[in-house]
Amino acid sequence: MNPVLEMLGRRLRLAVVGGGPGSFIGPVHRTAARLDDRFEIVAAVLSSDAERSRRAAMELGIAAERAYGGWQELLEAERARAQDGADVVAVMTPNGSHHAICARALELGFDVICDKPLTTSLADALDLVRRVRASGRIFCLTHNYTAYPMVRQARDMVRAGVIGEVRQIQLAYVQGHNATLVEADAAGRGWRFDPAACGPSLILGDIGTHAHHLGAFVSGLELEEVMAEVWASVPGRRADDAATVLMRWSGGARGAMWVTNAAAGAEHGLSFRIFGEKGGLEWHQEHPNELLHRRLGGFPELLTRRLHGALTPSAERAARIEIGHPEGYQEAFANLYKDAAEAIAARIAGRPCDPLALDFPGVEDGARGIAMIEACLESARTGRWTKARLELRSASWSGRKS
Amino acid sequence: MNPVLEMLGRRLRLAVVGGGPGSFIGPVHRTAARLDDRFEIVAAVLSSDAERSRRAAMELGIAAERAYGGWQELLEAERARAQDGADVVAVMTPNGSHHAICARALELGFDVICDKPLTTSLADALDLVRRVRASGRIFCLTHNYTAYPMVRQARDMVRAGVIGEVRQIQLAYVQGHNATLVEADAAGRGWRFDPAACGPSLILGDIGTHAHHLGAFVSGLELEEVMAEVWASVPGRRADDAATVLMRWSGGARGAMWVTNAAAGAEHGLSFRIFGEKGGLEWHQEHPNELLHRRLGGFPELLTRRLHGALTPSAERAARIEIGHPEGYQEAFANLYKDAAEAIAARIAGRPCDPLALDFPGVEDGARGIAMIEACLESARTGRWTKARLELRSASWSGRKS
Amino acid sequence: MNPVLEMLGRRLRLAVVGGGPGSFIGPVHRTAARLDDRFEIVAAVLSSDAERSRRAAMELGIAAERAYGGWQELLEAERARAQDGADVVAVMTPNGSHHAICARALELGFDVICDKPLTTSLADALDLVRRVRASGRIFCLTHNYTAYPMVRQARDMVRAGVIGEVRQIQLAYVQGHNATLVEADAAGRGWRFDPAACGPSLILGDIGTHAHHLGAFVSGLELEEVMAEVWASVPGRRADDAATVLMRWSGGARGAMWVTNAAAGAEHGLSFRIFGEKGGLEWHQEHPNELLHRRLGGFPELLTRRLHGALTPSAERAARIEIGHPEGYQEAFANLYKDAAEAIAARIAGRPCDPLALDFPGVEDGARGIAMIEACLESARTGRWTKARLELRSASWSGRKS
Amino acid sequence: MNPVLEMLGRRLRLAVVGGGPGSFIGPVHRTAARLDDRFEIVAAVLSSDAERSRRAAMELGIAAERAYGGWQELLEAERARAQDGADVVAVMTPNGSHHAICARALELGFDVICDKPLTTSLADALDLVRRVRASGRIFCLTHNYTAYPMVRQARDMVRAGVIGEVRQIQLAYVQGHNATLVEADAAGRGWRFDPAACGPSLILGDIGTHAHHLGAFVSGLELEEVMAEVWASVPGRRADDAATVLMRWSGGARGAMWVTNAAAGAEHGLSFRIFGEKGGLEWHQEHPNELLHRRLGGFPELLTRRLHGALTPSAERAARIEIGHPEGYQEAFANLYKDAAEAIAARIAGRPCDPLALDFPGVEDGARGIAMIEACLESARTGRWTKARLELRSASWSGRKS
Repeated sequence: MNPVLEMLGRRLRLAVVGGGPGSFIGPVHRTAARLDDRFEIVAAVLSSDAERSRRAAMELGIAAERAYGGWQELLEAERARAQDGADVVAVMTPNGSHHAICARALELGFDVICDKPLTTSLADALDLVRRVRASGRIFCLTHNYTAYPMVRQARDMVRAGVIGEVRQIQLAYVQGHNATLVEADAAGRGWRFDPAACGPSLILGDIGTHAHHLGAFVSGLELEEVMAEVWASVPGRRADDAATVLMRWSGGARGAMWVTNAAAGAEHGLSFRIFGEKGGLEWHQEHPNELLHRRLGGFPELLTRRLHGALTPSAERAARIEIGHPEGYQEAFANLYKDAAEAIAARIAGRPCDPLALDFPGVEDGARGIAMIEACLESARTGRWTKARLELRSASWSGRKS
Repeated sequence: MNPVLEMLGRRLRLAVVGGGPGSFIGPVHRTAARLDDRFEIVAAVLSSDAERSRRAAMELGIAAERAYGGWQELLEAERARAQDGADVVAVMTPNGSHHAICARALELGFDVICDKPLTTSLADALDLVRRVRASGRIFCLTHNYTAYPMVRQARDMVRAGVIGEVRQIQLAYVQGHNATLVEADAAGRGWRFDPAACGPSLILGDIGTHAHHLGAFVSGLELEEVMAEVWASVPGRRADDAATVLMRWSGGARGAMWVTNAAAGAEHGLSFRIFGEKGGLEWHQEHPNELLHRRLGGFPELLTRRLHGALTPSAERAARIEIGHPEGYQEAFANLYKDAAEAIAARIAGRPCDPLALDFPGVEDGARGIAMIEACLESARTGRWTKARLELRSASWSGRKS
Repeated sequence: MNPVLEMLGRRLRLAVVGGGPGSFIGPVHRTAARLDDRFEIVAAVLSSDAERSRRAAMELGIAAERAYGGWQELLEAERARAQDGADVVAVMTPNGSHHAICARALELGFDVICDKPLTTSLADALDLVRRVRASGRIFCLTHNYTAYPMVRQARDMVRAGVIGEVRQIQLAYVQGHNATLVEADAAGRGWRFDPAACGPSLILGDIGTHAHHLGAFVSGLELEEVMAEVWASVPGRRADDAATVLMRWSGGARGAMWVTNAAAGAEHGLSFRIFGEKGGLEWHQEHPNELLHRRLGGFPELLTRRLHGALTPSAERAARIEIGHPEGYQEAFANLYKDAAEAIAARIAGRPCDPLALDFPGVEDGARGIAMIEACLESARTGRWTKARLELRSASWSGRKS
Repeated sequence: MNPVLEMLGRRLRLAVVGGGPGSFIGPVHRTAARLDDRFEIVAAVLSSDAERSRRAAMELGIAAERAYGGWQELLEAERARAQDGADVVAVMTPNGSHHAICARALELGFDVICDKPLTTSLADALDLVRRVRASGRIFCLTHNYTAYPMVRQARDMVRAGVIGEVRQIQLAYVQGHNATLVEADAAGRGWRFDPAACGPSLILGDIGTHAHHLGAFVSGLELEEVMAEVWASVPGRRADDAATVLMRWSGGARGAMWVTNAAAGAEHGLSFRIFGEKGGLEWHQEHPNELLHRRLGGFPELLTRRLHGALTPSAERAARIEIGHPEGYQEAFANLYKDAAEAIAARIAGRPCDPLALDFPGVEDGARGIAMIEACLESARTGRWTKARLELRSASWSGRKS
């Protein structure tokens, strides 16, 4: 039932770094940790202001002595607790600090769950790849959209050859919350408009990495080359808010990606359309429980989560509720915590892990996303096709399959 | 933030009765309790078999001494714990036992969260109405579908006169899991096919009460009279699996309800379409984050959960995540636990409760559902229009608005 | 290619009665006649005012001497033309005059295409059944919705047992154009609010007959009994504008029908949902090129018109354009003219007719619709289930299958 | 009513060149000409084989002496008929012959309706622009998709500033009929795979020009530069079947276009999504009667064709049927014939033409499409951004607005 309870006789102890008051993603992570009853949140840093951090943590019910004022303090103090220190650190701070926090957490032996994008430079990303591989610890990167049951189903169908060789891939992520010059207002999510905190491209870091990972995950292919436009569509904006990218994938598939958060009136708009020699698959995050399967020479089929037994094991594992009860963003996000928990508990207990539990994105996926960003920016500067493929020596064992 | 923590300095202690291994609704209730971090599940009875019950509870991480073998034992023992006894009892046993468990829990001073349908007879339902009113305790009936943000939005729009006087109401709940003679197989959810456990109508108790409550909730009207067909559409079935009902509502609105779980290939299919003098509202549970608003003399508008500030306060309270991230069944279900928690904590703390937290269905709503069932069965027997309206003397105060 | 040209060496000569200036349906019929190049409109009566009628006909390009002032004059004069008189009369006058015009046209030997509802009383309808049968002429009733390719496909799938025995049938036709008291304004489509011209029920005659025919056509069943509400939902209205009907069909299927033209903000809203023992079929006229096929134990399939070879012969015959180019209302309407033309040409030429061309509604279908209306009104008066089945002695030959 | 009848006292006489047996587009053109009763088809060439041509024309009901064996013969003979020669020539031959036929038809004084793409080279296209401008004749290019009511509505909304300055444009046209190596089979639509007949790019000529014209029409912008991939996605194919193009438009808008006919299982898939500073518009040809209007700070609105008075005059003119009766491809195509007929009749009659009738694509639009093709091919060869803008000196008068 609950493999963490079963393997460890207790829930995993989670320390949270980031995601304090005003954060969108903070409550999402914490709810994800709670949903499947595999974690207990025992410690937190919730602000770069030590006093605000402590107060916010206590309001969440964290014990006063584990409501820390800074992440270094948290990591050292939790490591020092002999009996009941945190097992896992979840990092959801501004992008620019991911590398330092994760590196130190790994050094101290924590397993890590980290929000995307992995880092703000490829050099940092590759450094984390090395550190994770050396550490023997679990590293889960929260590309949450690939944890939807129907996305895993799509990946499994591609892998099984249901649509044949992949030929065309179209990715889109079309949001609207930056359609006006929101940054003109001092309030708001300021750090994303600061390259030091956010990285060299707001739009590619914030949502481009999600769309790219979705395409790579479902197709099973590596991005080879890109030809990109990356621009600010809103007059007066200094950060970017839109990108269109021609993409060449391993194996000869081609296509494009469109990502923007400045499409006035749009909501979420993450989708993929993938066509192979025998059919196509299409999915939209706004209706995540449906997967359209187009079939060469046949009528399209609308896969839903209804039929236990009809989905692949990986998709079925990710689905929680049957007969048409919709699941959403929070459940998909929680799938990552659920799976990572199982992998971490197995590592701690020294027991084998169900391979299906290892289906979460890892540090290498994160590095590929950063390589994509750097290639797109280079292409946009030169007006030329640019190599985007990241060559990673295959790890001996990196906590999960790469 | 977390009003329960704030008012009580701790989470509510929840005892769970029912929903053990194999149950669909058990994990839904427990996850709902966990989602917003307002409850701690401290005690459970998870099977009518004492030994299985204890084992299952321990597998969920319940302490051994609070993994009970029967509900009577649980209620007495938890009441007897001076310091840390359960505050609330959640009941998700077969319908036929709701009355006895709830009555005793109220007697012992527990607040109660109970699955629907309320009881298996109107007499029992009215008895529970009296008991709840006398007890001063909170009673929450889990008609979860009316806790979706867009359903609350629809109710609020009707209430505000956006579509004018309500004229036509169409309700449907069209499932497929009983499209074959599943009961021929001894395994499965057997108790629903046993009238003693399920009540006089499987289909009306199981899903008809949901559809009826949805119509009453959104329209703000009382069901006056029904003309019903209730039948077994699958040859060889002894229970019913389909009903179509002509409905007359207070204020002159009319319409129909179609409920079945024997529509081969269907999934969930709960929906309402309500038309008034100035427009109409339409909602489908399979796409719960959208509400179609048709407008007399204008184009239809598709309300989603995107716009904080554009939804009513009640809908906004029920929405968790913004900009197009879909929410689902589990989040809606959790809204009931979240709101009930706030009401219960306020009662315990002797503090005023945010009126928006009282927006969950209560014992009177449950009694109206049972009255609807009995009227439909009477109408089906006689081929005549039958009075369905339940006259409930207005309560002085019953823990919530009736 | 064009079987009429091939069989007769010329197009059929069509006389049009009704559908003049201001009419919605007049241009629809005339365009339908033109679409497949099988008719030439040679004569017309377009108003009950002789002068307006002649002027309107000449504006359509009708020769002056065949722009008649009244229907009697048209019928006699066209019959009298030895060489080039009309072959066919198309009747689209107010309902109350259908019987007289059709009866006389048949008497004079014309084939007839008539708008629905057939008549304004069952007695008149049965009289027309007798006359058609006696005449040996083709009679086509323009229940146009059953001429959509995907509706014929659904009928053929039911007939072939794809969804097994039919168990539940839900019909809806939900329009909004009478959501306000439009008749308060002297202008407008006045005759529909006059029972003498329209018949005893505006809503059942105008759209109820379409929904009923759709259900009967697709299911292949006969309506046995009804329990109906028929009412005016708009305050101050004397005609009816809404009906909800419980229906029992031959073979044990049951269900309901909801028809209204007073649903504020609605557009067209004709749909069916039919479930059998092995699956279900669902179709909405607003997206007529799609047919949803739900499958017991499988995922739903979305049939479209794409695949020549995958549709049934009858559906394929009704489809004109391939690969996702949408077809609409006018094309479906034209299918009736196209098929009737082929049947009429075969009759005139004394040649056998492709059985697929005989797939248009006939006089018996019209009579069944009038029987349904009368049964619903009787049921609404008495509050009782009422027999709706029309027993028609099987015809020796009535121009088409009954 | 029928302005052609009113202005000329007769229908226009149409000569058809191309579209014979086996053609998809031939019946579409002929039905389009018939739909609104403004043309009489009097002459035809229907095959490059003289005998087959004559036979096919006679089977359509063309008089024997006007069933020609070749297009030169048709043009000369029809010009020579003093009283009743054709007014208009409709050209739907393989692309490579458009230039010669149109040039000669214009020389002889015919008005011309021509299928797209205009020509197979930019030089030919510019030559036709000069010839049309010099001729004073009407030239209508059948980019039929921009004749849908909701596409005209979108264009008018953009023009009126409803979505503000246009910022992002995404175009797609995703078909599946070439997903396999259909050309391996000698039969089929062979000429499209022959560059001499089809032009330098199958995919860009066949559907790319449609998508490009749709984007230009709705946005009101000129394509400035492209960065393109154009390739054969099906192994063994020598023609192209897919293209993805980054596009820069006048005024600073950017976006992409994806066109393919090798997406296995896809049907039609033409769509646009256009976002401006205040909102967005989205349309899909497979559901052509709906236009989604996203609004900054508001909920999306779903425009349909229901509300006469709510649509712009241009859209309303293009809509034929009200209250939710769907229109399709054939009606949109016919809008071009309907409007061109009015413009031609006005020219012949020497009368002013309703400006709304001039809303059909002209020779300049065709030339812009060919310029787009040549720029994309150049860009694909060089891997560089390439100028796509066609500078056309504004015409004194070219039969219509350019």
